[in-house]
Amino acid sequence: MPRWDTRRRAKAERIAAGRTCADDKVVDRHRLVDLLHAVIRPGDRVVLEGDNQKQADFLSRSLAGCDPIRLHDLHMLIPSVSRAEHLDLFDRGIATALDLAYAGPQSVRIAQMVDDGVVRIGAIHTYIELYARMFADLAPDVALLCAERADRDGNLYTGPNTEDTPALAEAVAFHDGVVIVQTNEIVDAEKLPRVDIPGSWIDFVVTADRPYALEPLFTRDPRRIGELDILKAMIAIRGVYERHQVMSLNHGVGYDTAAIELILPTYGESLGLKGKIARHWALNPHPTLIPAIESGWVASIHSFGGEPGMERYTAARPDVFFTGADGSLRSNRALAQLVGQYAVDMFIGSSLQIDRDANSSTVTDGRLAGFGGAPNLGHDPHGRRHPSPAWLDLAHGQGAGRRGRKLVVQIAKTFRTGGVPTFVETLDALDGGRRAGMPLPPGMIYGDDVSHVVTEEGVAYLYKAHSLADRRAALAAVAGVTPVGRLARRTEALRRDGLVAFPQDLGVDTRLATRSLLAAHGIDDLVAWSGGLYDPPPRFRDW
Amino acid sequence: MPRWDTRRRAKAERIAAGRTCADDKVVDRHRLVDLLHAVIRPGDRVVLEGDNQKQADFLSRSLAGCDPIRLHDLHMLIPSVSRAEHLDLFDRGIATALDLAYAGPQSVRIAQMVDDGVVRIGAIHTYIELYARMFADLAPDVALLCAERADRDGNLYTGPNTEDTPALAEAVAFHDGVVIVQTNEIVDAEKLPRVDIPGSWIDFVVTADRPYALEPLFTRDPRRIGELDILKAMIAIRGVYERHQVMSLNHGVGYDTAAIELILPTYGESLGLKGKIARHWALNPHPTLIPAIESGWVASIHSFGGEPGMERYTAARPDVFFTGADGSLRSNRALAQLVGQYAVDMFIGSSLQIDRDANSSTVTDGRLAGFGGAPNLGHDPHGRRHPSPAWLDLAHGQGAGRRGRKLVVQIAKTFRTGGVPTFVETLDALDGGRRAGMPLPPGMIYGDDVSHVVTEEGVAYLYKAHSLADRRAALAAVAGVTPVGRLARRTEALRRDGLVAFPQDLGVDTRLATRSLLAAHGIDDLVAWSGGLYDPPPRFRDW
Repeated sequence: MPRWDTRRRAKAERIAAGRTCADDKVVDRHRLVDLLHAVIRPGDRVVLEGDNQKQADFLSRSLAGCDPIRLHDLHMLIPSVSRAEHLDLFDRGIATALDLAYAGPQSVRIAQMVDDGVVRIGAIHTYIELYARMFADLAPDVALLCAERADRDGNLYTGPNTEDTPALAEAVAFHDGVVIVQTNEIVDAEKLPRVDIPGSWIDFVVTADRPYALEPLFTRDPRRIGELDILKAMIAIRGVYERHQVMSLNHGVGYDTAAIELILPTYGESLGLKGKIARHWALNPHPTLIPAIESGWVASIHSFGGEPGMERYTAARPDVFFTGADGSLRSNRALAQLVGQYAVDMFIGSSLQIDRDANSSTVTDGRLAGFGGAPNLGHDPHGRRHPSPAWLDLAHGQGAGRRGRKLVVQIAKTFRTGGVPTFVETLDALDGGRRAGMPLPPGMIYGDDVSHVVTEEGVAYLYKAHSLADRRAALAAVAGVTPVGRLARRTEALRRDGLVAFPQDLGVDTRLATRSLLAAHGIDDLVAWSGGLYDPPPRFRDW
Repeated sequence: MPRWDTRRRAKAERIAAGRTCADDKVVDRHRLVDLLHAVIRPGDRVVLEGDNQKQADFLSRSLAGCDPIRLHDLHMLIPSVSRAEHLDLFDRGIATALDLAYAGPQSVRIAQMVDDGVVRIGAIHTYIELYARMFADLAPDVALLCAERADRDGNLYTGPNTEDTPALAEAVAFHDGVVIVQTNEIVDAEKLPRVDIPGSWIDFVVTADRPYALEPLFTRDPRRIGELDILKAMIAIRGVYERHQVMSLNHGVGYDTAAIELILPTYGESLGLKGKIARHWALNPHPTLIPAIESGWVASIHSFGGEPGMERYTAARPDVFFTGADGSLRSNRALAQLVGQYAVDMFIGSSLQIDRDANSSTVTDGRLAGFGGAPNLGHDPHGRRHPSPAWLDLAHGQGAGRRGRKLVVQIAKTFRTGGVPTFVETLDALDGGRRAGMPLPPGMIYGDDVSHVVTEEGVAYLYKAHSLADRRAALAAVAGVTPVGRLARRTEALRRDGLVAFPQDLGVDTRLATRSLLAAHGIDDLVAWSGGLYDPPPRFRDW
């Protein structure tokens, strides 16, 4: 007689063991390590909420402090490997296998640990891909999650940084895994501002020794925006946003897209584009978008996560941001990814390296940085069916195969700081992937998905090319004097045929590309634009 | 001074007006029409939970009974237009605009109403695309949703048919819309089996006059599976599942994929494939999968929705299905779509019409059927990065653009019942789309995304073709004597090169393709396999 409830029975045993360190669901903070020893078993698959932003760091620090004799060979699922102790787990022998989506802050160390055989990588995913596998072949046994407040029944208030928590909690709670949550405080049920995740999904809550760690990853100081960024922004607005009537979009986190955000109320206004472009966004609450919001450019923003300092501002702008009945932001990375893939017309983001076929990567030598969310946002989802002017403007194919196309725009300076070319013959990722033993090169965005490339030289309308040769020539025409740009041929013909546009073709007056075009020149200006509602983190408060 | 809380103020006013018909959140059933008049305003965007399966029919019937003098020009967002009253809303002048994803059961009437100018279609979407737009440019003012039980605070238990409810509730609750939920019963909080959606997201609950409507859309009676279906199933197992080591997958709802499910424990077993293929599924709880589950083939199934009659069975198999702490199934269409796109190796589904380029459609003349979820599942998402043997087996591209590929398999008989060819020169959808004024043809799956076509003749390995001519020739080679099949050329060369395989090439003994190969011959056999846990709906109980 086969058993069909092995997971449920294991969960019951684990919970019974954990209850010895807890008062029902509430864990004694000083006994957290005991609880982890009691609940987690060697070889378990454990999802740990390192998100893009918030970090269940009390849980990760405590897990790293467990006894490797009792707890070993864990298979960790960590969306973002962001903290030193995420890797200490492997150095200490507590964990051996890792599936992840992103490792930006730890990318050098993780590469070394893979080389040394200390970390065995299952695969490197995008965020939603890693969540998805938790509902398929990577079902976790235990989840270590993070919330802002909880009640004693485990009802959770996540605050603005809801992020990955709902998807991770659902994968584990509904497949008989054990869900353990650290929270900044435990309050009475009636003092929870709202419930983001129901208590019936949660097995244990513990008050952390300090508030969970959170990094302001989406704050760009306007002072660091240079004139080339502003020129690129002007070119993008005229050559892409205006030309294709881009009403809904997603921005990356570079200084060039921050420049676009900051010249909408100046340059965009002067072109009469308000209300005609950039109305609906899938975006974290970027502080650099405040002037555009305040100037009435923005109708809605659905967010993947929050951003430190933007709490009061987002709460005060509920027509624009998604907020709960309590008034504070709710984000949701899984849903924002759906919005970014299926509801918006354009993704525009920066890249560190682009090859002549427009393949791009943010990996440079000796790092294992992962993918995050860009590959999902930066591709043309063939499962979209609703039309919009921008999407139809790039329509292609014949007969029953005819369809619109998402705008996937790469924006970059031809040379990075220090004179390093962005456009290269071969991506470093190729070599890096080979040395890390990856079965395929770790490309961030595939060139054939890229519809436009914007540089300070102009726009390459790659989607218009009818041949690979034309495609490469169009890209080369905007690649400056980089190794790729030196291959430029027939540029005048490409301009005439509309495959390439230079500033003068777009009516962009390059003399205007100065910092005076920015609606805010520093973080202090953003605070002023927000009417004092934006509270920048200390590191940005140096005016 | 601009206002930033117009939606929140409007919501407060609507709720205050609605409270006159309710005791806090609990609406007097007999005053539901009054409540709808009080809460909804002319011109509102209203999302109505017509899902693929469950229907908020008390709410839709009540809305259709409202006074068109007081309530008119509504813009309805209905994932699945499944019920007569969904369209009565338009005939009565209560609603004028419609955004939808699917209209299968009402596809003829809706086409007529569009022709007559009674319904103005915004767009036809896929399910997740429609949810996504609710977080962008289609923010609803009111949601009319459906749950199995609620408490007086609005905490919801959805039961196994969670389906679309979490995504729809989140879009509305977190953008200051009003959320009204019909429930089969209101119980004390401690009697809710679990909480699927927290009460702080919900504004009003009303006990329906009868349990919500639910259709058994995913039940296929084995008696209706013919020998050609079984032959196709054998060909698919050897030529696709076994050849590419397909471990994770999603099935459509045809009799051919039901046949695959039913010969895994017989034919699949005889080939020694148990544990080597088809372990992890994104799938509704198909009754025809019971024998494979009971035989130990299936490790996990994450479900888009539930299926009537499968409640006790899914609850008794929690190692396989996703269930809550209460023991019952939880489904989630938005997340299952992520699983289907990013975690599984293959989609296989039937099609009514396929053209020579493998474009397909389920639209035939005079219908406006919509897209549902197939376009999302039936494409190759370029945002996937983790490798698997099946995905790598279809790897393509050069250098940094090299990547794996999802298997997108179309399975079809060359001729449908009545001698109608499946493979046609021109899809009916082209003409239908043109007459409905759609800007693009309503294709279900684009031919260039299709990697394999399986018919009773054999398998066309389209992904292997290096030219369009080879691709068409490979498809023609398995298209029998249809208009497309008559174009077959160079078939022997294609077989030799592996672009086409016939049963004899795959070691498929066509003599075995009889109904005796099915692990269950009727619904009664499925009940027996389930140990009496499967409770088929009455219409299927005629043995």
